[in-house]
Amino acid sequence: MVSTSLNPLTVDRSRIRPDIQALQAQLVEWRRRLHQRPELGFKELITSEFITQKLQEWGIEHQTGIAKTGIVTTIKGKKSLGTHSCAPVLAIRADMDALPIQEQNDVPYKSQHDGVMHACGHDGHTAIALGTAYYLSQHQEDFAGTVKIIFQPAEEGPGGAKPMIEAGVLKNPDVDAIIGLHLWNNLPLGTVGVRSGALMAAVELFDLKIKGKGGHGAMPHQTVDAILVASQVVNALQTIVARNVDPIDSAVVTVGEFHAGSAHNVIADSAHLGGTVRYFNPKYDGYFGQRFEQIVAGVCQSQGASYELEYWQLYPPVINNAEIADLVRSQAEKVVETPIGIVPECQTMGGEDMSFFLQEVPGCYFFLGSANLSKNLAYPHHHPRFDFDETALGMGVEIFVRCVEKFCS
Amino acid sequence: MVSTSLNPLTVDRSRIRPDIQALQAQLVEWRRRLHQRPELGFKELITSEFITQKLQEWGIEHQTGIAKTGIVTTIKGKKSLGTHSCAPVLAIRADMDALPIQEQNDVPYKSQHDGVMHACGHDGHTAIALGTAYYLSQHQEDFAGTVKIIFQPAEEGPGGAKPMIEAGVLKNPDVDAIIGLHLWNNLPLGTVGVRSGALMAAVELFDLKIKGKGGHGAMPHQTVDAILVASQVVNALQTIVARNVDPIDSAVVTVGEFHAGSAHNVIADSAHLGGTVRYFNPKYDGYFGQRFEQIVAGVCQSQGASYELEYWQLYPPVINNAEIADLVRSQAEKVVETPIGIVPECQTMGGEDMSFFLQEVPGCYFFLGSANLSKNLAYPHHHPRFDFDETALGMGVEIFVRCVEKFCS
Amino acid sequence: MVSTSLNPLTVDRSRIRPDIQALQAQLVEWRRRLHQRPELGFKELITSEFITQKLQEWGIEHQTGIAKTGIVTTIKGKKSLGTHSCAPVLAIRADMDALPIQEQNDVPYKSQHDGVMHACGHDGHTAIALGTAYYLSQHQEDFAGTVKIIFQPAEEGPGGAKPMIEAGVLKNPDVDAIIGLHLWNNLPLGTVGVRSGALMAAVELFDLKIKGKGGHGAMPHQTVDAILVASQVVNALQTIVARNVDPIDSAVVTVGEFHAGSAHNVIADSAHLGGTVRYFNPKYDGYFGQRFEQIVAGVCQSQGASYELEYWQLYPPVINNAEIADLVRSQAEKVVETPIGIVPECQTMGGEDMSFFLQEVPGCYFFLGSANLSKNLAYPHHHPRFDFDETALGMGVEIFVRCVEKFCS
Amino acid sequence: MVSTSLNPLTVDRSRIRPDIQALQAQLVEWRRRLHQRPELGFKELITSEFITQKLQEWGIEHQTGIAKTGIVTTIKGKKSLGTHSCAPVLAIRADMDALPIQEQNDVPYKSQHDGVMHACGHDGHTAIALGTAYYLSQHQEDFAGTVKIIFQPAEEGPGGAKPMIEAGVLKNPDVDAIIGLHLWNNLPLGTVGVRSGALMAAVELFDLKIKGKGGHGAMPHQTVDAILVASQVVNALQTIVARNVDPIDSAVVTVGEFHAGSAHNVIADSAHLGGTVRYFNPKYDGYFGQRFEQIVAGVCQSQGASYELEYWQLYPPVINNAEIADLVRSQAEKVVETPIGIVPECQTMGGEDMSFFLQEVPGCYFFLGSANLSKNLAYPHHHPRFDFDETALGMGVEIFVRCVEKFCS
Repeated sequence: MVSTSLNPLTVDRSRIRPDIQALQAQLVEWRRRLHQRPELGFKELITSEFITQKLQEWGIEHQTGIAKTGIVTTIKGKKSLGTHSCAPVLAIRADMDALPIQEQNDVPYKSQHDGVMHACGHDGHTAIALGTAYYLSQHQEDFAGTVKIIFQPAEEGPGGAKPMIEAGVLKNPDVDAIIGLHLWNNLPLGTVGVRSGALMAAVELFDLKIKGKGGHGAMPHQTVDAILVASQVVNALQTIVARNVDPIDSAVVTVGEFHAGSAHNVIADSAHLGGTVRYFNPKYDGYFGQRFEQIVAGVCQSQGASYELEYWQLYPPVINNAEIADLVRSQAEKVVETPIGIVPECQTMGGEDMSFFLQEVPGCYFFLGSANLSKNLAYPHHHPRFDFDETALGMGVEIFVRCVEKFCS
Repeated sequence: MVSTSLNPLTVDRSRIRPDIQALQAQLVEWRRRLHQRPELGFKELITSEFITQKLQEWGIEHQTGIAKTGIVTTIKGKKSLGTHSCAPVLAIRADMDALPIQEQNDVPYKSQHDGVMHACGHDGHTAIALGTAYYLSQHQEDFAGTVKIIFQPAEEGPGGAKPMIEAGVLKNPDVDAIIGLHLWNNLPLGTVGVRSGALMAAVELFDLKIKGKGGHGAMPHQTVDAILVASQVVNALQTIVARNVDPIDSAVVTVGEFHAGSAHNVIADSAHLGGTVRYFNPKYDGYFGQRFEQIVAGVCQSQGASYELEYWQLYPPVINNAEIADLVRSQAEKVVETPIGIVPECQTMGGEDMSFFLQEVPGCYFFLGSANLSKNLAYPHHHPRFDFDETALGMGVEIFVRCVEKFCS
Repeated sequence: MVSTSLNPLTVDRSRIRPDIQALQAQLVEWRRRLHQRPELGFKELITSEFITQKLQEWGIEHQTGIAKTGIVTTIKGKKSLGTHSCAPVLAIRADMDALPIQEQNDVPYKSQHDGVMHACGHDGHTAIALGTAYYLSQHQEDFAGTVKIIFQPAEEGPGGAKPMIEAGVLKNPDVDAIIGLHLWNNLPLGTVGVRSGALMAAVELFDLKIKGKGGHGAMPHQTVDAILVASQVVNALQTIVARNVDPIDSAVVTVGEFHAGSAHNVIADSAHLGGTVRYFNPKYDGYFGQRFEQIVAGVCQSQGASYELEYWQLYPPVINNAEIADLVRSQAEKVVETPIGIVPECQTMGGEDMSFFLQEVPGCYFFLGSANLSKNLAYPHHHPRFDFDETALGMGVEIFVRCVEKFCS
Repeated sequence: MVSTSLNPLTVDRSRIRPDIQALQAQLVEWRRRLHQRPELGFKELITSEFITQKLQEWGIEHQTGIAKTGIVTTIKGKKSLGTHSCAPVLAIRADMDALPIQEQNDVPYKSQHDGVMHACGHDGHTAIALGTAYYLSQHQEDFAGTVKIIFQPAEEGPGGAKPMIEAGVLKNPDVDAIIGLHLWNNLPLGTVGVRSGALMAAVELFDLKIKGKGGHGAMPHQTVDAILVASQVVNALQTIVARNVDPIDSAVVTVGEFHAGSAHNVIADSAHLGGTVRYFNPKYDGYFGQRFEQIVAGVCQSQGASYELEYWQLYPPVINNAEIADLVRSQAEKVVETPIGIVPECQTMGGEDMSFFLQEVPGCYFFLGSANLSKNLAYPHHHPRFDFDETALGMGVEIFVRCVEKFCS
């Protein structure tokens, strides 16, 4: 990512239409209400109840209880169909879950749930989606076709996107394209990170147990030293990124945990390694697990050790469709200052289960700059002091609405 | 060590003099009493009290409270001096402490102290020393000079030998030579492991903290991966034994603990390694700590990490004096079947703070075979099911007494 | 790079203007003549003489002997200036040198110089540049400003671009932009690889001598084993790409040579490593040499070795300017089938000294697909059987001419 | 080995019997004559001829042409048999071959054969054996039984001991014991290195070819990097000595050669490693080759490489029999100052094919101190300036003769 200052660009309020400006106070209120009641994945009961209540209040058709706590609204446009041969269906996705983090911010809307915090901005995502739903329900004459707004649980894991897809949220009517956004403290307020192709990485996880043979620390010849074998594995794993992956592609293999042994003078009989693998290019689907095991198996064989490996392909990479990315960029350009406000060099090796939706239908996930260093709102995501500039909420609604008006016309 | 069966050699009872045979029942009783009341290093209060009571009962001159719980007896021979120009002083050393292990044996004399166990045989050492004291006090006419019997605390660590020496147990009268034994389940009953030169290894310990820089598991370039650096250290440490130590010398560098990281997707900011170093040759005094740090410093520098290293030279090697070793062997040959019962190839990389005594005066530490596989008494030392064949107790007294009679004549 | 078939796309001859179609036979003749007389870097005497003769014949102003064998032509347009406030100056660059390879093709125009071969296609580059010069000299009324055509020596090394720049070829008149092409057998005939940003990698080289201390193979403790130290260096170098480079960036660190020792039973006193480093992102200028030495220094320190390191930053990365890349793409789209014929995913970790020109002025280097598997013209560059489909020659002239007409208008 | 000064101990001439003192001048003459005409293994034609001529001259029964250039003499004692039930047969072994080294000494007896030199002292061994033969032939009444003196070719490799054994030199009459010596510049004149058990190491050799897949230095993902795989092998091999061998045993694994690649920017398709393995304990017979291949196979598997391994068990360890070592020591004690002149800590990881004889019959190989730093005679064996103090020649004869007289009595 290009190094950018986290001070905001000038935000030109006139780029937000009056009806959305008028929503801003409520967007903030909704977001803060959600922030105070953060809930972990698949347990978003209060959150889900809050959304449902609003949708009912506004008379918006919706379905609840999808993948436990997920909700889908269906808002039909009343504009007569233009160039489309049939009525287009656009989905907008927002995630609702929080993280197992103890908030350290001292704000009036601080989390009231001990050890749980909206430290990634999903409270904002939900507020933006709610605002978009409300606006669209009030301006049905401005778009044709159908907009589905998807409130998804458990993005932080184990993943709500897949079960929602399996529950049919992209069907009946069939979704033609999907968009979604992430408030992004790596970019300043007033910017949008949008690009065609890979935006975020595939996420894979592993748990490896190296099984040697323990013994007295002074008698290595009677043992198979699990710490030594595991250290050789850690070193050999470096060759995957260094030599096996096409240098033009991006990949990470991280061993995040290494635990073995419990005494100075005892040779450990086993060692546990845990870590993550990341990459953008879908051609590596299945590759890393296989290559990882090849290294582990070979090193273990060389030292007379054995192993147990669990390897999970958690989320695929987030791959944006070129045309939908163009749509988003073209609309974002009307909301932020150009060209400076549009940041195509915004790839990150972080992951997102938005990727499952993008595997099913063309779409675009994008970053909405939310950092404001001058207000000390620039802590990274997942930090106990994370917070964002709420000015971004209205901008998010404006971009979503513009995409709807453009796509469904 | 030569691979020997752990079935006992034939033990010829006639090799034990009748007065010591007569002690055998009491040796067993004392040992079992101590076994039931095991105490950790420097906390051998009941043990010390028991020994003191016996010495008082037998009217043996002694001094208590040395290095907290240590005791020294002084038994003077009444034999007229032979070839010695002045009266010889021989010390016999026995250790008293137990281990923090929960006994798993189901025997009548099982440990009554939860989580503490005589799993190394020091109960037997104490019983043998007591029996020797008693016998010598009853047969003062059979030896000249003085015998000091040293009951030492805390051999398993942090070490009672050094503070006892500092308290003067080798002085006044000055000790000319010292002997000691370890009941040894690596050798069968009926054997004695005795050799000139190195018998047991120097013991050194280290705690190393590698300090990198933590970060997101997907963003290694913003971090210094402590697990990777520590793994490189583990690999590089192998070269000390493989390339730096004279192949004719013996050494071990063991990393027994490796702990780092607490999440799959977070790069660890630090890693802890703990382990032990062993060697026989005193010329390496100071060498390993220096070479160890050279490797750590270089690897850390190569990766931009830093470190904190604590390195302790716990015990020096146990080096037997050639003449005293000859004395012990010559007397042991009268107690066990020869040549098969004498095992010079009995070196072990285990350690012992008997070494501190041997640095001060010539002496010999030896192994008294105590395994008896046919009675299922062959578990290794420090095992929760460790136990030994008590037949060895009388043999130990016989060897000690013979050494006294020979040395002090 | 995307995996593409090396069978050609349909080439629509009507996309080449008649006057350039008419040149095709001569382009082929010139190229073959050059192919028969390949010359190594800075020794392109026959080549230079041939070009000069043609330019004289055509009455084109030119300057010779720049950086030994380089030539620059100056062709002035006669079109009246359009939107430009001042007359634009566009440079076109072609390289002329061959490789020290023995040709294995059996063609009438096979190399007549033993051990030297145009195995990279520079003969074609020169022919295209000559054709472009000729066409432009005949159609001066179709463009404004000035076109400089640069015939450069020694691209394969040690590099002719830098000395030509130093000799002033980009000055007087000052060049506003520069373009250049590489015939590219990794793409089929009928395609153009063009992209904004990094196209080709920086090329750096290293020669490392690890200095240990030799000795008898059975006495490692008296030595510092240079092979072991160098092996540790090779392993540690993997961490640069695996952990230190931003995974979103591309980099390669290759050790291509490892030579040490001359006897089974002698420990080598030194080891030589040679290799190359590649990367795209200019922010790494200077980084790899520094990081490389940090690893070498640390590993050597850890093992008591020393080193001598020579590290050269040979060529910087080839970075295309966004606007000039747009210009080239827009014109290429008129020559090849779209969108299939335009390949933006054409990055390669190979290097080029075109990069020096692109550091001085905005520009675009691009790949002109030249493989034709159906004619067995698909051997990789630098292969002794390399050859390309000469149909590409006219296409190259057409694209260059179109760029001139567009830029200089 | 203990660090000893290489200044000679006082040599007491009275310890050499007059008849052997009288031989000294001839011993020197013979040795120098041989030194001037050094011959490589199995090509000891002049040497063999010289020995034969002497034996004939002295009327000593002998057999020539064994294992090409080997000779065996048979000298029968005339002393009446003492305690032996049958006539004892003692063999004395001397090696005759030189090394492919260009001598750099400037002495009158310098090598006259270009590039060949007696740089290990075998010229002295031959002279001592000749002197012994002569003395014994003149004093047959002083010993019983039979003495066989074995002049062996090719000790430096590929080994003459084995073919001589196969030719029957230990049979008919059957040899009861064998002795031999090596002039030893690691010990000063006036000392003898003698010990029971292992004296010199087993020698094994390996040639390993790692087979990867070559390619462009910038495209590692299309290759299997043989240099990287071989470097991992070098590192993993360290664990054999560091962790797999009993620390009480001695072993060396040395990679003496590493050759791969021929260009900076080409990934090597193969790598060659060559080296040696040494150990004392015969229980490791076969172990190292197997463990070596296990490491190579596992590492190759982990990286997708393959390999070709040639592994030779060249010489077994030199293991002295306890009784014969006692014999030699007891006789050496009469020739050198005791105890200082007897050096039991004289093990070396160097190898010797004397080991094959010692596998067949009990025996003792020993070192005869030959360095004299005060005369600048202390260069190590195999050095182009190697030379030794010829005073040792007579001492060698005296020790051999004494052993004969003791063993054959």
